[in-house]
Amino acid sequence: MSTDLLNRRLRLASRPHGEPAPTDFVHDEVPVPSPGPGQVLLRTLHLSLDPYVRGRMSAAKSYAAPMELGDVIVGGTVSEVVESTVEDLSPGDVVLGYGGWQEYSVEDAAGLRRLDPAVAPVSTALGVLGMPGFTAYAGLLAIGRPAPGETVAVAAATGPVGSAVAQIAQLRGARAIGIAGGERKVAHLRELGVDAALDHRAPDLPGRLADAAPDGIDVYFENVGGAVWDAVLPQLNEFARVPVCGLAASYNATALPEGPDRSGQLMGAVLTRSLTLRGFIQREFVPTMFEDFLRDMGGWVASGQVRYTEDVTEGLDRAPEAFVGMLRGDNLGKTLVRVA
Amino acid sequence: MSTDLLNRRLRLASRPHGEPAPTDFVHDEVPVPSPGPGQVLLRTLHLSLDPYVRGRMSAAKSYAAPMELGDVIVGGTVSEVVESTVEDLSPGDVVLGYGGWQEYSVEDAAGLRRLDPAVAPVSTALGVLGMPGFTAYAGLLAIGRPAPGETVAVAAATGPVGSAVAQIAQLRGARAIGIAGGERKVAHLRELGVDAALDHRAPDLPGRLADAAPDGIDVYFENVGGAVWDAVLPQLNEFARVPVCGLAASYNATALPEGPDRSGQLMGAVLTRSLTLRGFIQREFVPTMFEDFLRDMGGWVASGQVRYTEDVTEGLDRAPEAFVGMLRGDNLGKTLVRVA
Repeated sequence: MSTDLLNRRLRLASRPHGEPAPTDFVHDEVPVPSPGPGQVLLRTLHLSLDPYVRGRMSAAKSYAAPMELGDVIVGGTVSEVVESTVEDLSPGDVVLGYGGWQEYSVEDAAGLRRLDPAVAPVSTALGVLGMPGFTAYAGLLAIGRPAPGETVAVAAATGPVGSAVAQIAQLRGARAIGIAGGERKVAHLRELGVDAALDHRAPDLPGRLADAAPDGIDVYFENVGGAVWDAVLPQLNEFARVPVCGLAASYNATALPEGPDRSGQLMGAVLTRSLTLRGFIQREFVPTMFEDFLRDMGGWVASGQVRYTEDVTEGLDRAPEAFVGMLRGDNLGKTLVRVA
Repeated sequence: MSTDLLNRRLRLASRPHGEPAPTDFVHDEVPVPSPGPGQVLLRTLHLSLDPYVRGRMSAAKSYAAPMELGDVIVGGTVSEVVESTVEDLSPGDVVLGYGGWQEYSVEDAAGLRRLDPAVAPVSTALGVLGMPGFTAYAGLLAIGRPAPGETVAVAAATGPVGSAVAQIAQLRGARAIGIAGGERKVAHLRELGVDAALDHRAPDLPGRLADAAPDGIDVYFENVGGAVWDAVLPQLNEFARVPVCGLAASYNATALPEGPDRSGQLMGAVLTRSLTLRGFIQREFVPTMFEDFLRDMGGWVASGQVRYTEDVTEGLDRAPEAFVGMLRGDNLGKTLVRVA
């Protein structure tokens, strides 16, 4: 069964080699199906663009199964209910779901969370009050565990995860060093009030980072990898903690970098400085920490103690270019596409 | 002030380049000094040879300060009290200390632990009931945390740390895979009753390890690095824990290995499988776990639930060759030198 509506979609046409190209995406329009029992028909309002989606476009096994060719590109969405088969959701309700890169989606009601527009703008459920904010909260507090007076460094610090990490660290009494690429982002970091703002594109990041962390670094929230990690590693103190939630610098990499092989040296640093490297995906902490997060972060956002920025692109058709731009680091804050 | 005794010592003559050479050590004989207030004069009975000493022979900063040229080579010792200035230690008492590679030492009484020969052979205070045994106990239980039914892998599994790891893992209800080099060691592992014993010198370690761990590996106790680690990494399950207490395979390395650079790939594995890599030195856990260790391990050794082997070389002069042999992996069990 289908409705009279047409659904414009963006699907995976080919697996990207390196940076995604326009030809890796294909548009189509299909009739919008009717919701089955327990399902709702949703109209997408806001689509979230996230770096992990680049991983799912590849065939390699990762923490989530790869997309298949022809699949609608995946993504979190804030949507409005158009038609519902369940009692507790009605047309006009706004929900958080996982509709992907399309104008309409049919989803199981059980997987949706209803949003209250009175609490905060509904788009924040994709950013500071959603998965990125929770990634920052859980990774920093459960793995990083900064103590008052300790030094926390974070890269991609104007991104939705990094800027939350820096601000939560300061709320916990730690010093926050934010690292980002370019003058505009560094200016934004200063505005946020981080203790030190470093441009990783300017010369001698290692030297400037050492100056900014005279007592060393106790927590490095890793979401980038690459040259920033190379600069941070020598500054890590004994017993430093490194929550690893992303390696955006290498998501488009097509081959291992040239040698020498520094993997043994990395293990040597782990050994001699009693470091903790801990990879994580936020969903691991949902059962134990998500309620605390909504309470704490909701309060901090409402009071202005945690600030956030949204980088909004208008129109689903421009999602691919916004996605590639985000992978390049062009975005400031949470990357969203306004679909409806 | 000195006594009439002569003290034969082995000192650091030069920093080894790669594997230590006989010329890196120099013998001498000096008068034995008298103990000052709060000190005791000790005669060395057993000297412990440990891989970490190779690190202290180098100038590079590690978790312990490097030795200086001319220093007596460091090492744990079990010694007999010859002369005491303190009330609670008398001639004939046997103590655990840190006398190093020499026949006599003068040490602060406060740093010594008196041993009861009725509980266990005193040499075990350097092995299964000492630092190596505690390294296994603390690293496995505080960081590895094997659950019943999980799979624990350990390399250098006939060494004093590895064999304790495998046996404690089994006492906790986990499957233990022991990896060691050569037929003799594998036979010893079978005798110990590990669930699988693998020779890392035989062909296709990765394939045999995958066969031995059909459900993957949940805990890898890392004390070797190198090719064994390369074989283990692909088998690690999501949320696997890797206590890192040594990288013996690279202690004699003089340059980084050739490329490609796999350090980013390692971080990628940490990320996508939510791995924990955690370096540690046993002393971190002494305040919180050492009493439990003496109670638990003392009981297990007394009951025969944990077995141990000692590899004893006679005479201080042969310590350098025994040390080099241990770094090559020639030893079976705890490497000791009987000095007196």
